[in-house]
Amino acid sequence: MTSVTSTASVTKVLIDCDPGIDDALALALVAGSPSLDLVGVTTVAGNVDLERTTANALALREFLDLGDVPVAAGSAGALLRRDVRAAHVHGRSGLGDAELPAPARPASPVHAVDLIIETLWAAPGEITLLAIGPLTNIALAVRREPRVVEWARDFVIMGGTYTRGNHNPAAEFNMVADPEAASIVFDAGWTVTMLGLDVTLTALVTTAVLDRMSDLGRLSALLLPATTSYGMVTAEGGPAIHDACAVAYVLDPSLFTRVPAVVNVETAGRYTSGMTVTDFAPRDRRPNALVATSLDVPRFWDLVLGAYTRLGERLG
Amino acid sequence: MTSVTSTASVTKVLIDCDPGIDDALALALVAGSPSLDLVGVTTVAGNVDLERTTANALALREFLDLGDVPVAAGSAGALLRRDVRAAHVHGRSGLGDAELPAPARPASPVHAVDLIIETLWAAPGEITLLAIGPLTNIALAVRREPRVVEWARDFVIMGGTYTRGNHNPAAEFNMVADPEAASIVFDAGWTVTMLGLDVTLTALVTTAVLDRMSDLGRLSALLLPATTSYGMVTAEGGPAIHDACAVAYVLDPSLFTRVPAVVNVETAGRYTSGMTVTDFAPRDRRPNALVATSLDVPRFWDLVLGAYTRLGERLG
Amino acid sequence: MTSVTSTASVTKVLIDCDPGIDDALALALVAGSPSLDLVGVTTVAGNVDLERTTANALALREFLDLGDVPVAAGSAGALLRRDVRAAHVHGRSGLGDAELPAPARPASPVHAVDLIIETLWAAPGEITLLAIGPLTNIALAVRREPRVVEWARDFVIMGGTYTRGNHNPAAEFNMVADPEAASIVFDAGWTVTMLGLDVTLTALVTTAVLDRMSDLGRLSALLLPATTSYGMVTAEGGPAIHDACAVAYVLDPSLFTRVPAVVNVETAGRYTSGMTVTDFAPRDRRPNALVATSLDVPRFWDLVLGAYTRLGERLG
Amino acid sequence: MTSVTSTASVTKVLIDCDPGIDDALALALVAGSPSLDLVGVTTVAGNVDLERTTANALALREFLDLGDVPVAAGSAGALLRRDVRAAHVHGRSGLGDAELPAPARPASPVHAVDLIIETLWAAPGEITLLAIGPLTNIALAVRREPRVVEWARDFVIMGGTYTRGNHNPAAEFNMVADPEAASIVFDAGWTVTMLGLDVTLTALVTTAVLDRMSDLGRLSALLLPATTSYGMVTAEGGPAIHDACAVAYVLDPSLFTRVPAVVNVETAGRYTSGMTVTDFAPRDRRPNALVATSLDVPRFWDLVLGAYTRLGERLG
Repeated sequence: MTSVTSTASVTKVLIDCDPGIDDALALALVAGSPSLDLVGVTTVAGNVDLERTTANALALREFLDLGDVPVAAGSAGALLRRDVRAAHVHGRSGLGDAELPAPARPASPVHAVDLIIETLWAAPGEITLLAIGPLTNIALAVRREPRVVEWARDFVIMGGTYTRGNHNPAAEFNMVADPEAASIVFDAGWTVTMLGLDVTLTALVTTAVLDRMSDLGRLSALLLPATTSYGMVTAEGGPAIHDACAVAYVLDPSLFTRVPAVVNVETAGRYTSGMTVTDFAPRDRRPNALVATSLDVPRFWDLVLGAYTRLGERLG
Repeated sequence: MTSVTSTASVTKVLIDCDPGIDDALALALVAGSPSLDLVGVTTVAGNVDLERTTANALALREFLDLGDVPVAAGSAGALLRRDVRAAHVHGRSGLGDAELPAPARPASPVHAVDLIIETLWAAPGEITLLAIGPLTNIALAVRREPRVVEWARDFVIMGGTYTRGNHNPAAEFNMVADPEAASIVFDAGWTVTMLGLDVTLTALVTTAVLDRMSDLGRLSALLLPATTSYGMVTAEGGPAIHDACAVAYVLDPSLFTRVPAVVNVETAGRYTSGMTVTDFAPRDRRPNALVATSLDVPRFWDLVLGAYTRLGERLG
Repeated sequence: MTSVTSTASVTKVLIDCDPGIDDALALALVAGSPSLDLVGVTTVAGNVDLERTTANALALREFLDLGDVPVAAGSAGALLRRDVRAAHVHGRSGLGDAELPAPARPASPVHAVDLIIETLWAAPGEITLLAIGPLTNIALAVRREPRVVEWARDFVIMGGTYTRGNHNPAAEFNMVADPEAASIVFDAGWTVTMLGLDVTLTALVTTAVLDRMSDLGRLSALLLPATTSYGMVTAEGGPAIHDACAVAYVLDPSLFTRVPAVVNVETAGRYTSGMTVTDFAPRDRRPNALVATSLDVPRFWDLVLGAYTRLGERLG
Repeated sequence: MTSVTSTASVTKVLIDCDPGIDDALALALVAGSPSLDLVGVTTVAGNVDLERTTANALALREFLDLGDVPVAAGSAGALLRRDVRAAHVHGRSGLGDAELPAPARPASPVHAVDLIIETLWAAPGEITLLAIGPLTNIALAVRREPRVVEWARDFVIMGGTYTRGNHNPAAEFNMVADPEAASIVFDAGWTVTMLGLDVTLTALVTTAVLDRMSDLGRLSALLLPATTSYGMVTAEGGPAIHDACAVAYVLDPSLFTRVPAVVNVETAGRYTSGMTVTDFAPRDRRPNALVATSLDVPRFWDLVLGAYTRLGERLG
């Protein structure tokens, strides 16, 4: 992944994440994609608490052979709200039944927010910022240094929905976990590419997919228990690996239909806080988002399983 | 409609409405259905203002030959909010390009809220209450006399959505027009049968439907201009006649798939007020609604066009 | 009170109340004031539940010799909110330690909202409407028949505050008990005379006052236990008899300094719902309220104790 | 101020401010107080925009001879809200009619949030953090590095009110300008000493005070035009120099009566956002604030004018 020679086609990405099973599957997709250059991993509390998401990011850095990319811990909770966690989904460790070796190397002494700011500052226009957890770190970075909005080459999130939610009927987990942060981020002045439940819920791990994940050597020891503890796998369906969609988007945007929209994040509702209210026909405002509305599922799995196979071979 | 002899199969209905093009089409469906006994029509401000909705209800009573059913005017505005109208959809008159003769008889001197209470009180367990406009009158009736909840045989609304809205991305027009009233009505203790946009937007007037509406004598003079001014009709689609779905439901509930749910009406959101937040898997509360999730469209049109044909013949 | 001959100086009042200790003291003030003609008493849930407030109103009608004034029961709860009661203040019965004989005559069969509408309709411009509980009935009357706003000669409430609350730091009890109703009532188009905690908390029952209440014959059997169970009486202070201030205002407005203001009732706050946000220097809106800012306490007590003495003599 | 030898009695302070007339008067008080060691000045948008508040802080550093204390610019706007400014009060420059020489030295290259974190980190338990503008920087610091809460020796703000506001009837300007930041700061885990309008509005510049400000040499060229453009000065009253109260508190807490309280900042209200809802008798929560309830005004002016005199002599 970092040993690519043809830099022409390489995209630099900084990932803000809360591993989390699907975060792990997303990082594995990065690790198996030579056209991505991972320049940083920052962690945030979300699926599980910050201590666990950071420990998992560190363990994944070594297990997935991600080299010496910096891993920096960030926000331990939402800007204003009480903690919302999803340990019932991701298990106490955050990686379901997958058990990774304890990491040998520690996290960066730098704070996630600083790493985001400094990394984007050092290479303006070059780095795609990918956020696949609650948006607390991104919001703090944007408010601390508003120019990150210009420095980012692109900003892509897994999060939100324009139809129905998963944490509650109105909203998706990452947005519910920090609605004010999401509101800050969507209103920051850039165009947010939003890959929401509307598309990620079509990226299901079926038994056919699981089969192909099962003979990838050491890598299977991560993929299989993580996936099966994430949801029941059947021939027709199974758990959705939400976060991997965001990486797939960076690898090949043509996998997704995207529509410009104004997205307002509700912060005041009794039943709707964190809802990404998506207006595809706004009258008064310029679109602040590019919202994915469909995914080419077969090509998605080709991409993902191809990368996993490549990574499996490398890891042995 | 009122001259049915076999009372065994007759359903008494009281309709609260804001005509409104689709309200007119709904009342025409009532008029053409011998199995319905219309016991009252109450009006509310909604699509257009109260003066127009009442005038239209009066004109329709005579044009559709609805006999001496009482028509009572009700609320001229929402409980708390500023007025929201839809004259851009329903035209200044509220009936699009349809022009009905001025009515000869006036509205009842009784207020809509009183008519609802008294009518239900006089025949507890017998009357189906059908609300196809903003829920202001119903809310006032429920708060003024909580026992209407027990007296109504069934309570059916056209309104809401569990996916996306029409007035804005989050909410349907009737709910946006009076969110607090909707909240009162959904929390009143009865089971609300909710026919929302999720199903009504499948009941589209196509060219094939329009053809069949076009040779119904005098009735066509209402149906055709109303419908075509409501939206563009094509072979595949056209305007949805939302309110007629609610009448169709009373005529034949088996047309609809219905799922129990908890519906909370958002009243506090900045972008989501009036949203019917629909939880199909509630953990802590008993369902307060039966939510329609699909409509058998061919059978729906058979029912509607059959009734319109019958009515057309009667009206000449 | 009803036997006054000189009608020139008599003010007709309809009282909406939730007895409640201070409601009882307010009704006693009416009963002892020949210049007031009580034309109706309506009840609402508030200090205690509707069953108790109505029973107390009925008992007080007989104990205070209020004649055949109709007592009509109204709303059993707020428009939208869960119940808020103050039984810890008013005791389980709602009248503290006072024990009145059970009433012989029942409540009117008419609903409070209807009694308000019909009474004001029958004598437009003549009747002062006095609301000393949560504003649920008034809001329903205003929405059911908007012309009550014109028909009322004056509209006076005990409720609200422009400084600090009593139910919580931001809001007064009657407003917290039904913020949406209060919002409807303040926005209804009339001028609300608001007698809030700012003045009522200066009308304290001191030991000197209590002494004068103690030798009024049968009446003392109401006044003394009610007052002393309401709060500790000392030489310098004691409980405030909030609701009596509203009656005193009708008897003699000159007791109070009043300032025009725009009052908005907060309905959306997490910590402030029911707050009467009072702007004495509004820029964009005409005042909707006349807010009392000070009370001439010695003259107030002269008025009140004079009336109590007169009533005590009459009751024996 | 920085040349004090007896460190025993010196308090280190870091001031976050938005100069602003009263901020200038507060900094002058610092400059004239040998017992304060100013270790940093950070700026935030508030009374005027960030460019002006920073320029004013830089100009004041030189005019007041504050040495080489770092001045770092911070947040240019609130966390979530649109900008609220008070240029109508503070003039376009932010310093009313006072005109200071353009500063020779620039702001620190460090961001205000980083300066706050680093300064407190370097001397845990030693530095009093004083915030006299909107709390945006403090909120970002707290969320970026939660341990600042432990590192600060004390945290004192000018802001809020427990009675009535100045920007609107419910809230004080600094809180309205960033309610979400205020909410974060009050809930951060430390005890906030809140000097609100309740006390600052008693610290009025009367003609007697103005006289004493008028023969202080160069310093008078700041104090006089700033104060008189801030509000009309009379014998009985004049403008309140809010921010100077916060410095006075650090110099001598005994000037103020303080009461423990739970302060919740309203962020959801339509009319009350930014209100500091202050509960002096909380049942369920430990106090998070120490709220000033009275000020010894004569001693306050002795302190302030003494310091101004000392500074005036030094500046010549």
